[in-house]
Amino acid sequence: MERTEIQDLGEFGLIGKLTNGLTKNQPSSLLGVGDDAAVIDPFGKRVIVSTDLLVEGVHFDLSYAPLKHLGYKAVIVNLSDICAMNALPTQIVVGLGVSNRFSVEALEELYNGMKLACELYEVDLVGGDTTSSPSGLTLSITAIGLADSKNIVSRGGASAGDLLVVTGDLGSAYMGLQVLEREKTVFKDAPTTQPELGDHSYILERQLKPEARTDIIRELSDLEVLPTSMIDVSDGLASECMHLMAASGLGVRLYEDKLPIDPKTYDTAREFNLDPTLCMLSGGEDYELLFTISPNAYEKLKVHPKLSFIGHMTDDPKERIMVTKSGADVELKAQGWDGFKNE
Amino acid sequence: MERTEIQDLGEFGLIGKLTNGLTKNQPSSLLGVGDDAAVIDPFGKRVIVSTDLLVEGVHFDLSYAPLKHLGYKAVIVNLSDICAMNALPTQIVVGLGVSNRFSVEALEELYNGMKLACELYEVDLVGGDTTSSPSGLTLSITAIGLADSKNIVSRGGASAGDLLVVTGDLGSAYMGLQVLEREKTVFKDAPTTQPELGDHSYILERQLKPEARTDIIRELSDLEVLPTSMIDVSDGLASECMHLMAASGLGVRLYEDKLPIDPKTYDTAREFNLDPTLCMLSGGEDYELLFTISPNAYEKLKVHPKLSFIGHMTDDPKERIMVTKSGADVELKAQGWDGFKNE
Repeated sequence: MERTEIQDLGEFGLIGKLTNGLTKNQPSSLLGVGDDAAVIDPFGKRVIVSTDLLVEGVHFDLSYAPLKHLGYKAVIVNLSDICAMNALPTQIVVGLGVSNRFSVEALEELYNGMKLACELYEVDLVGGDTTSSPSGLTLSITAIGLADSKNIVSRGGASAGDLLVVTGDLGSAYMGLQVLEREKTVFKDAPTTQPELGDHSYILERQLKPEARTDIIRELSDLEVLPTSMIDVSDGLASECMHLMAASGLGVRLYEDKLPIDPKTYDTAREFNLDPTLCMLSGGEDYELLFTISPNAYEKLKVHPKLSFIGHMTDDPKERIMVTKSGADVELKAQGWDGFKNE
Repeated sequence: MERTEIQDLGEFGLIGKLTNGLTKNQPSSLLGVGDDAAVIDPFGKRVIVSTDLLVEGVHFDLSYAPLKHLGYKAVIVNLSDICAMNALPTQIVVGLGVSNRFSVEALEELYNGMKLACELYEVDLVGGDTTSSPSGLTLSITAIGLADSKNIVSRGGASAGDLLVVTGDLGSAYMGLQVLEREKTVFKDAPTTQPELGDHSYILERQLKPEARTDIIRELSDLEVLPTSMIDVSDGLASECMHLMAASGLGVRLYEDKLPIDPKTYDTAREFNLDPTLCMLSGGEDYELLFTISPNAYEKLKVHPKLSFIGHMTDDPKERIMVTKSGADVELKAQGWDGFKNE
């Protein structure tokens, strides 16, 4: 395995190598990497901007997240934030801080993951900053998207009676993480053991290589459905419900039997002695979309295979209820991921 | 001195505290902090985007850079990149990674510096991400600016014969850093010694609290002068000249006696046994603007008190000459700051 040291290339050499072969997918990208700033033509649309900072040892663990996956996921996390405004992502800029522990080849892997995500989502990498770091890897991504003014959906804006809709399934990314953590522990105890990851490929992929729901944004537009409020599920369903509640001044009622879970996620949760419902409510990192629609939009969406109708908004801002499968009301608790708390 | 731990507030509590009291200066800022993304109305203009990642121990040393100054400077560095496109900055988003070594009060100081810069430059802080970090402080800022399509100036675009113009004076920030480094060494050897910073206030301010040249962008617009190429001086004059050369495929001739230096910077360089010209060429962090103009724009600018005409572009891309005060031709070397090299 070849290893080129970063200092052999220097800052500009490294940037040249990493940004080599970048293609342009968006007509709005007028000027990309290589100047003091990127230039974007918004074509009369509104500009949506979101930023995320990913820190080694906090957001990712390179002992089980390959660099290419990390690059891919870092981009997806940001694209998901743009989707959460009912907009489509068009550009990203990337800040990279690395210690000399990383070879040039390792950073190329990281960039290959970012480039792959950009290619698949037709997003352009138009700028960045690459710098050294005393220890570890830090990745900062700012995503930019465009949307017509009338289509932008914020966290606020729901009315009492609006239906709560979530895309895909929940809890899988969290269970993927549990499997990875377990195998890491096994590996530490017996380094020659092969990891037992085989039958968990779906949940591992959900953890290591999530997707942003640009498909849903396009389909909602095609169906002429405008959500009344929207957020992406990064911290867990319960936490995201609280954000929608707070922003619209409403309460929420969820129905446990409506929450979407993949059978493999369910089985793995059981295997780990975890409550599958709790994994859905508090797991996080699913990057699905949670949104509300007016009841009269229900007809258009009711047979959509990617959507689950999981509850509705109520006019009591103090109401945060999940109706269990047995019919009991339990209070929702936001146990969303918080990097500053001990877990 | 009060000390509140970050974990006592949690992520959302911290964000609420830090973003408290943010004001809106720009009509283009439609939606700011508190949703999945910010929303900007570009009013038919082009959108300019630039990002920077600042890492403790690489870009700043908290033993002599107070957090408020750091916050201020981090914003300025990014605004300067927007100015370098002949655009005016309008928004920033901030990614902050901090270890629990920092108190909430310390982070408020950091934010106070960022807010002050935003206020003075009428820029809105519209979004961000706040997260924990295993060690140290990482600050990622993405700045956004707007400009009419016809006014955007890139690094390329100069013609042979165009005049090279630089704003303000050069080398001061670098000499400020030398003074700070010296006092830090003295302080380490004798911790009770008072730092001897008194007579170096100008160069210290240039290092700790630089400014972005939005004034020049406005004045060029008022005078109806459109530079043919432009860059900001972050790595040192020589390095920036090379960037302009490479982007336009031209050579450059500088005149040593035209390079602007403040008398205090000159004297301090001598005191440190450093060549004042080398400080101007390779010092960096001045955040002045370096640009080229067509010779027929000279009349409009020639008596401008903030501008120095330091040379011109030539048609030989291999020519990178500084004519010394004694009339000799010496080759320019880009010894710009490179975080990946050992210095």
